[in-house]
Amino acid sequence: MKTKKQLNLSAQETNKLIAAENRKFFSENGIFAVNIIGSPGCGKTSILEYIVNHFDGNFAVIVGDVKTALDSDRIIQSGHKNAYAIETGGGCHLTANMISQTLEEMDIKNMDYLFIENVGNLVCPSSFDLGENLKIAVLSIPEGDEKVRKYPSLFLRAAAVIINKIDLLGLMDYDIKRVKSDCLAHNPNVKIFETSAKTGKGFDQWFQFLKEQRK
Amino acid sequence: MKTKKQLNLSAQETNKLIAAENRKFFSENGIFAVNIIGSPGCGKTSILEYIVNHFDGNFAVIVGDVKTALDSDRIIQSGHKNAYAIETGGGCHLTANMISQTLEEMDIKNMDYLFIENVGNLVCPSSFDLGENLKIAVLSIPEGDEKVRKYPSLFLRAAAVIINKIDLLGLMDYDIKRVKSDCLAHNPNVKIFETSAKTGKGFDQWFQFLKEQRK
Repeated sequence: MKTKKQLNLSAQETNKLIAAENRKFFSENGIFAVNIIGSPGCGKTSILEYIVNHFDGNFAVIVGDVKTALDSDRIIQSGHKNAYAIETGGGCHLTANMISQTLEEMDIKNMDYLFIENVGNLVCPSSFDLGENLKIAVLSIPEGDEKVRKYPSLFLRAAAVIINKIDLLGLMDYDIKRVKSDCLAHNPNVKIFETSAKTGKGFDQWFQFLKEQRK
Repeated sequence: MKTKKQLNLSAQETNKLIAAENRKFFSENGIFAVNIIGSPGCGKTSILEYIVNHFDGNFAVIVGDVKTALDSDRIIQSGHKNAYAIETGGGCHLTANMISQTLEEMDIKNMDYLFIENVGNLVCPSSFDLGENLKIAVLSIPEGDEKVRKYPSLFLRAAAVIINKIDLLGLMDYDIKRVKSDCLAHNPNVKIFETSAKTGKGFDQWFQFLKEQRK
């Protein structure tokens, strides 16, 4: 058998092929996959912890990181057994192949949702399809309000944007109206949620959205 | 003339060659170049604004962004004429070639320091030498205290680490001792500065360090 490497495909072409296989796998197994992308420190893992503790559904979690399994350890410690870590070893984004390999290890019985935390990075992960059903962008108040304009690629592709650490709004300069209008300028159909993984604000609406999308 | 592309060098090999040329150019022209790297929203541009308003020396500024010249506009608005923008058009880091091309446009007379704000990204910019004299990593309190462990590549290479938004310490969970000890574990010679671009805290020490390094 010829491997994809021998076929001389570019990294992006290979990724597209494997992403399509992942998408087929998700569809055939009734799994709704969510690819969560945002800057380092915007709160992706805290959002996953909130999901683990409050999301009413059968799900697994894949946590991507450049180095260390600190984040997946946090998830496992919060009581969820179906959490897997991918360490990219320097790579700045997850690839469809990393997901495909991890799926082989996973227990997919009764898995209705798969939440994937990508590497903390607003640029590269947006260009690598993992075969997910939804791409979610995470922003956070302390990052400042110009990120959507400065990193457009993600916001052209994300079906929903989470503005996290909303409990800090008011403590720092952040024009949330501007952020929302920038999001809508990139994608008029985008759904925007204001959340705090500390207080739980906004998660009910986001969970509701996920369930509607899965139908 | 054969271009570097025709010579069939990899992107990294080409980058190394041009970085070496930049380094020679800086040395011959008495320019001390500083490459500032950190996550989106960690405060790189606010740090540059503080430099523009308070740094006692002749300097220019290059601001890299994926899209828009919002950051260089902020710098120009703050009164500094010698500011240049590089828009990478989707690229996740600056390259030595981008710097080299920008240098051709710049007025280098009486330029003693060049401050380069890299694209907001903790991963990719750390692998692309620009020919700089110093690589500076910027962290910020709201990002959380595990970034050094999770993104080691930058912290192995940075001569100094700035822990910014120090005015927010106490408002959120952040174990600053752990961060410092992680930095030292990656590079025992690293200098660590605690700064706030809002209050000006820590900048005197950092400016002093830069001047000592330039000697």
